[in-house]
Amino acid sequence: MATDKAWGGRFSAELDAGAARFLESVSFDKRLADEDLRGSLAHAEMLGSIGVLSPEEVRALTEGLSALRDTVRAGDFPWDPAREDVHMNLEAALGPAGQRLHTGRSRNDQVATDLRLWARGACASVGALVDRLALALVDRAEGEIDTLLPAYTHVQRAQPNRLAHHLLAWVEMLERDRGRLDDCSRRLNECPLGSGAVCATTFPLDRERTARALGFLRPTRNSVDATADRDFLVELLAALAITATHLSRLAEELVWWSTQEFGFVELADAHATGSSMMPQKKNPDVAEVVRAKVGRVVGDLVALLVVLKGLPLGYNRDLQEDKAPCFDAVDTVSASLAVLADTITHLRFDRPRMRAALGHGFVTATEVADWLVTRGVAFREAHGVAGRLVALCLARGVELSGLPLDAWREVHPAFTEDVFRALDPEVAVERRDVFGGPARRRVLEALADARARLDARRGPTP
Amino acid sequence: MATDKAWGGRFSAELDAGAARFLESVSFDKRLADEDLRGSLAHAEMLGSIGVLSPEEVRALTEGLSALRDTVRAGDFPWDPAREDVHMNLEAALGPAGQRLHTGRSRNDQVATDLRLWARGACASVGALVDRLALALVDRAEGEIDTLLPAYTHVQRAQPNRLAHHLLAWVEMLERDRGRLDDCSRRLNECPLGSGAVCATTFPLDRERTARALGFLRPTRNSVDATADRDFLVELLAALAITATHLSRLAEELVWWSTQEFGFVELADAHATGSSMMPQKKNPDVAEVVRAKVGRVVGDLVALLVVLKGLPLGYNRDLQEDKAPCFDAVDTVSASLAVLADTITHLRFDRPRMRAALGHGFVTATEVADWLVTRGVAFREAHGVAGRLVALCLARGVELSGLPLDAWREVHPAFTEDVFRALDPEVAVERRDVFGGPARRRVLEALADARARLDARRGPTP
Amino acid sequence: MATDKAWGGRFSAELDAGAARFLESVSFDKRLADEDLRGSLAHAEMLGSIGVLSPEEVRALTEGLSALRDTVRAGDFPWDPAREDVHMNLEAALGPAGQRLHTGRSRNDQVATDLRLWARGACASVGALVDRLALALVDRAEGEIDTLLPAYTHVQRAQPNRLAHHLLAWVEMLERDRGRLDDCSRRLNECPLGSGAVCATTFPLDRERTARALGFLRPTRNSVDATADRDFLVELLAALAITATHLSRLAEELVWWSTQEFGFVELADAHATGSSMMPQKKNPDVAEVVRAKVGRVVGDLVALLVVLKGLPLGYNRDLQEDKAPCFDAVDTVSASLAVLADTITHLRFDRPRMRAALGHGFVTATEVADWLVTRGVAFREAHGVAGRLVALCLARGVELSGLPLDAWREVHPAFTEDVFRALDPEVAVERRDVFGGPARRRVLEALADARARLDARRGPTP
Amino acid sequence: MATDKAWGGRFSAELDAGAARFLESVSFDKRLADEDLRGSLAHAEMLGSIGVLSPEEVRALTEGLSALRDTVRAGDFPWDPAREDVHMNLEAALGPAGQRLHTGRSRNDQVATDLRLWARGACASVGALVDRLALALVDRAEGEIDTLLPAYTHVQRAQPNRLAHHLLAWVEMLERDRGRLDDCSRRLNECPLGSGAVCATTFPLDRERTARALGFLRPTRNSVDATADRDFLVELLAALAITATHLSRLAEELVWWSTQEFGFVELADAHATGSSMMPQKKNPDVAEVVRAKVGRVVGDLVALLVVLKGLPLGYNRDLQEDKAPCFDAVDTVSASLAVLADTITHLRFDRPRMRAALGHGFVTATEVADWLVTRGVAFREAHGVAGRLVALCLARGVELSGLPLDAWREVHPAFTEDVFRALDPEVAVERRDVFGGPARRRVLEALADARARLDARRGPTP
Repeated sequence: MATDKAWGGRFSAELDAGAARFLESVSFDKRLADEDLRGSLAHAEMLGSIGVLSPEEVRALTEGLSALRDTVRAGDFPWDPAREDVHMNLEAALGPAGQRLHTGRSRNDQVATDLRLWARGACASVGALVDRLALALVDRAEGEIDTLLPAYTHVQRAQPNRLAHHLLAWVEMLERDRGRLDDCSRRLNECPLGSGAVCATTFPLDRERTARALGFLRPTRNSVDATADRDFLVELLAALAITATHLSRLAEELVWWSTQEFGFVELADAHATGSSMMPQKKNPDVAEVVRAKVGRVVGDLVALLVVLKGLPLGYNRDLQEDKAPCFDAVDTVSASLAVLADTITHLRFDRPRMRAALGHGFVTATEVADWLVTRGVAFREAHGVAGRLVALCLARGVELSGLPLDAWREVHPAFTEDVFRALDPEVAVERRDVFGGPARRRVLEALADARARLDARRGPTP
Repeated sequence: MATDKAWGGRFSAELDAGAARFLESVSFDKRLADEDLRGSLAHAEMLGSIGVLSPEEVRALTEGLSALRDTVRAGDFPWDPAREDVHMNLEAALGPAGQRLHTGRSRNDQVATDLRLWARGACASVGALVDRLALALVDRAEGEIDTLLPAYTHVQRAQPNRLAHHLLAWVEMLERDRGRLDDCSRRLNECPLGSGAVCATTFPLDRERTARALGFLRPTRNSVDATADRDFLVELLAALAITATHLSRLAEELVWWSTQEFGFVELADAHATGSSMMPQKKNPDVAEVVRAKVGRVVGDLVALLVVLKGLPLGYNRDLQEDKAPCFDAVDTVSASLAVLADTITHLRFDRPRMRAALGHGFVTATEVADWLVTRGVAFREAHGVAGRLVALCLARGVELSGLPLDAWREVHPAFTEDVFRALDPEVAVERRDVFGGPARRRVLEALADARARLDARRGPTP
Repeated sequence: MATDKAWGGRFSAELDAGAARFLESVSFDKRLADEDLRGSLAHAEMLGSIGVLSPEEVRALTEGLSALRDTVRAGDFPWDPAREDVHMNLEAALGPAGQRLHTGRSRNDQVATDLRLWARGACASVGALVDRLALALVDRAEGEIDTLLPAYTHVQRAQPNRLAHHLLAWVEMLERDRGRLDDCSRRLNECPLGSGAVCATTFPLDRERTARALGFLRPTRNSVDATADRDFLVELLAALAITATHLSRLAEELVWWSTQEFGFVELADAHATGSSMMPQKKNPDVAEVVRAKVGRVVGDLVALLVVLKGLPLGYNRDLQEDKAPCFDAVDTVSASLAVLADTITHLRFDRPRMRAALGHGFVTATEVADWLVTRGVAFREAHGVAGRLVALCLARGVELSGLPLDAWREVHPAFTEDVFRALDPEVAVERRDVFGGPARRRVLEALADARARLDARRGPTP
Repeated sequence: MATDKAWGGRFSAELDAGAARFLESVSFDKRLADEDLRGSLAHAEMLGSIGVLSPEEVRALTEGLSALRDTVRAGDFPWDPAREDVHMNLEAALGPAGQRLHTGRSRNDQVATDLRLWARGACASVGALVDRLALALVDRAEGEIDTLLPAYTHVQRAQPNRLAHHLLAWVEMLERDRGRLDDCSRRLNECPLGSGAVCATTFPLDRERTARALGFLRPTRNSVDATADRDFLVELLAALAITATHLSRLAEELVWWSTQEFGFVELADAHATGSSMMPQKKNPDVAEVVRAKVGRVVGDLVALLVVLKGLPLGYNRDLQEDKAPCFDAVDTVSASLAVLADTITHLRFDRPRMRAALGHGFVTATEVADWLVTRGVAFREAHGVAGRLVALCLARGVELSGLPLDAWREVHPAFTEDVFRALDPEVAVERRDVFGGPARRRVLEALADARARLDARRGPTP
């Protein structure tokens, strides 16, 4: 008879060694040990409160669980793959008392609780790293309030911009990333304990008490749903995939801005690497790997969606495959956020090269069109006029500022000397003085606003 | 010179016909026509309010836009692929007045506004369909409060359950689906108008006014971000993918429950199909196709994530590829929700077969273990005892109720005649009397609670 | 009684209108009409050959099917969504004779046959477009045999290269893309006809004959597999996703090479677009959209994988969802290949800017290291020496060629005047004279080899 | 100065510790150690053959590499994350001699070679496991040649089938899976060595020689392509994803067939698990986890596609992210194949329950229609007649065999006593006597054919 498992009674043969190896999860779900022990502690105390366990039993369990927690945290716990998973490993370590702990609880509601505790923690820790990167960007933006560079669309020079305004675009994305993590955390914050394997439990558990003890808002409302769904993990993965996508975009920008051709940034030596063959190389490997990491995270998201597709109720063992993608995505995004924050902090912006880039590429051609519009020309016509001026410049090999007024007037009679002032990037950027625009005062306000939000989330400085 | 486009001035040759065909988007973005016209209306009125347009110009534009709206709604608008996209088509239809409308606006902030308006509407309409399916489930659950069936884990009979409790598990999932759509709608509800192509605009637009007119909470905070990111669409697609996953699971259940082997449900003839070759077949095609549709929606989500990966700021034409996956996913999930609601409403539950399924498979073996636990046996030991009883039954070819008390007592001396009462499914299910469990009063409370939530969202009945 | 369907006999109610709309597939599977008619033709002739149909019946069917083919090709067929799918539409159009055609055939083997015929054709047509793009690249490469530019790694200038060698890298990828399509086409080239709905047929069909008539290599070997699997479509989608990935990479290069910063290429006016707001813009929209399209194709691949996940045997209606992603992916990749071929053909390479880029960024630093190695210095040491020289140049603001010999010798005593010759890009590239390298004669051989392969596939010119 | 890296010369600061941790790959790419050493061995010998290394140097390197190989295989190699990756770890372990090995080689062509060697091996080892599962299925099919069961479509009973024929459907899928792996292996079987970092090498390497020594068909044809593309890994992942999809389908079948409702199979105790709460449970966990594993593999495929999207040439560090998904997918599919083969081998088929399932559900209704067709009734009419007979049976609560002849004749006058013989499943299945059908002799031929193919691949038995 198979006796060493949690479920041996009806079986006449031990689980095949290959199957056991295939099924064991302790090699990765041991990561939930802390959450598992917290859940057990709350469960034990509640069992005491309703008289299922005696005060002595509760005390013994509490002490045992605390001791285990220390052992696990110290990295000293002897995880045994033969004991299937984190739950059975920890229960076995409690000795006979551990068996009592299983009263009114199944591994199905136990693991669902562990996962929600873990996911709640992950939302908080990733959220803090999101803010850390946002803060690094805000810090740098404050120092570059007077740095001008071209804004690009289609990676073509478009209009004059402030570097601070550009950097704040990334901050906005991170703000929403944070919001998604917060929403996810709030929605999942219900306690499955008491849902049993699928149909709750026959013991009169005090579900409110356990929920409160573990910091949940309330108990889950349906035992079948609570043990059989993992949508909160998909939501977490989706939020992480969006964040990773944002990071891939920021990384792409760093890669191209550090080319010899752009030269807008130089990575600190401590955040760049060389080549084993080409001695001159200074490669933006950190940015490249961040860019690539979005692949993993999207892959993790797809993995869990595929796992869940078409699963009937209630719990199926397929759900064991929920953990690896979540752990991987949280680790990946966390590492990417941290390393990018450091990279941004130590980046050198090449202000002269940014400014020089404004001198070519007709980045103030929109100003010319706007100049005409304010003198009564319809926008589409004004746009066409400016386009013809650009074509003329290209043919002559000059910039707009190099074209004599006569030539302007041949294209459109409304032009006067005054138009040349519109070609100054500084003037052009200051004229973009609307909420959300790059005029200096608007950017200063946006910076103050962003910093205030970030400070508010970090709580009071002592 | 290329003159028929919005951008012809600097070009000396027309766009190649093949390239034009490849780039045109009006064949699909015409779906945004209503949103585009609403945005133009708000923009025109605001331009009037700040004196950029005269009252006459505003009136002419307002009338023109309203007329266009009627034409579009009637399906009579002559969409012209040669005019690139929905924006240029509609602007051209306004005649010369349309050109004035482009003052302080670019296609980049225009399309971002259209998309947010559309996505906000999609969240609302899909959300209503989510509620419709939830309501269909609640309606059916109320009629099946006294129907018992096995709850399954691993698709093996596990414990006695109420059908109503089972159906409410799906309602819980839909409740969270609705919540995700609401969060998405709230987060995206900011107005990009005034962000221009990338660096806002030189015109002193009243961004608060346009935002308010269009029902947005506020203007977006950064012009580069507002025109270059589409994370709100990824969030929408992720929410839809989770919903579609839930539906695939419900559909899977319908497929298997309608097999000859389970026979728990029979689809109405009006919601089932036959076979062109096999005359006896009654196939659950609707459920099968719903199950399959999750593929499309996950594919749509992946598509947009891949599009966004590694895009630098600001707007890149790649973003044109954001629309097709979103339209497809919204249509797919909407159709699946509606057809499933109808299918559920007209389903026949085979109560006798469900009840009969409780008579085999030892679904009350947990009760036996619990019976021992309440008599002081540790859970793990009690579990082992019940397992050995099951093994004994299997060897003898009987159910637990068919095993004489002597045999019970040989396995464990604590058993008394009283244990047989624990084998009654009705008793067993009533003993699961915790919040979130299947006891009758708990399910009635859950039903009332679910209905109250759904009613509250539908607003007052007149 | 429901009588207008292929399967009405046992049903007492018509299919619900909403369900019918949800299930109909003719709106997209009509694309298989030609394949369906070819299959029917072969089936009819075979039924005649084994005496199941009389010669008159065969003649009538043959004529009917040919007439239908003309109608369909002319676009005149009145597709009726009420008739479910392409098969029932066409069969109904044949009149009573159509019913006889269903002898020994089910829609399950019929659609499997249609799909294989279609996929075989898709492999051929996409393969031809792959070759067309390869040919465009070879054509351009031949004209740029003497154009030098930096090769990049990490988008940092790495070593001198020939543009022709660079372009041939893309040709190699396309060569493998073609190979995957050919393998896919060969593997799927078996005929399902005769597999029935799942368990073949009771009629003594001549499966070899139909297979041969339709150009298949042989009949499929198992009726259950033939009707229930779609792995050949996943293989097709995977091949297309890889091709689309290659195209996204080529497109990315075009986008960056056409920036003002790189300026390596200028798109023809006929393959570039402007901006509605910024008159100066010349945007690489074609390349951007090609880059984005990979999203759709990866999405399509994921969609079908999700559909197939966990489907039991035999045919399930879920398989209806196999078509949309395949049609979309084939169309998307075909359009991308065609438009890129045109873009490449009309591109202007800016040779002076490419050459100028070799003058900065120490692209011949590897040569310096190699120079030392050929004089007996271990590679790692030589690499370090060259690195220190680069650092010295950076500190002094000079290129390697601007550093006096004394300075070289201070870093390593082995240097002699001769080292300056190694800094000439032309010399450097010619020294890379191995198979697969950029030396002129190697590239000429590679070009001839590529052209010969492409010519061989196109067959003899008349 | 940074001196401990392969590239320190031009850098003035050490790599930041966080960045180093983020970038290191040796924790996972050490898996390529054996391939790396084989590649180095071939490179060293070739360098000797062209006189770049002296015979003594070659001998020293050969001995050093062999010793390292032993150390690595014994698991004794002290991997050091500070040394970045597997290449630098192994090179450092060779001492000063290792530096010479870098002559004419870069990490870019080195890792490309390692990956191709590894992928070739993976194709072979996974292919062997595919065959092992196919063989297990063939073995079981041979024992079940006379076991009848219903074939299902839409999971509804469809027609009588032989279990052996059903099992052979899975064998066909595995046959194609094997074919895809073989094609992938063949296509990637070219040697990148000599491609350098991007533009080959200035040393006159004998690329044919290294290619031959490592079992490659030939050297790669373009140095940029050889170092910058990973399409062969995507192809491998796609092949594995298709295999994993097949396995998920087989697993799904096992899950449902082992329900109490179907009861077609019973898993061996050694391949099933119990429940920690419900003592009666015997759960198909192995099948469930196999079904779920397809999620990981599809996720891995998507991950690499996302990594490659939009990467310009040549090598970018993003490519480092190619390894984790490939290792994971190969391990996952290998484990799934092995555990499924064991599960299949030890499965108990419940022949009486399968046979009993043929007695209900009108699985021979097609035979009735066919019976009419062979008597001159058009198929569609015959199908309708059989459908009405089924409706009649349902109304009366009988099976077709229980309906008296009078009732048959009322529905259609052509029926005679003879029709009852057509209702015998044995007769029905034997009439399906076409190539690829379930008639006994056809299945025996198919079995012999499958076994012959598998035997041929395994080579001669000694």
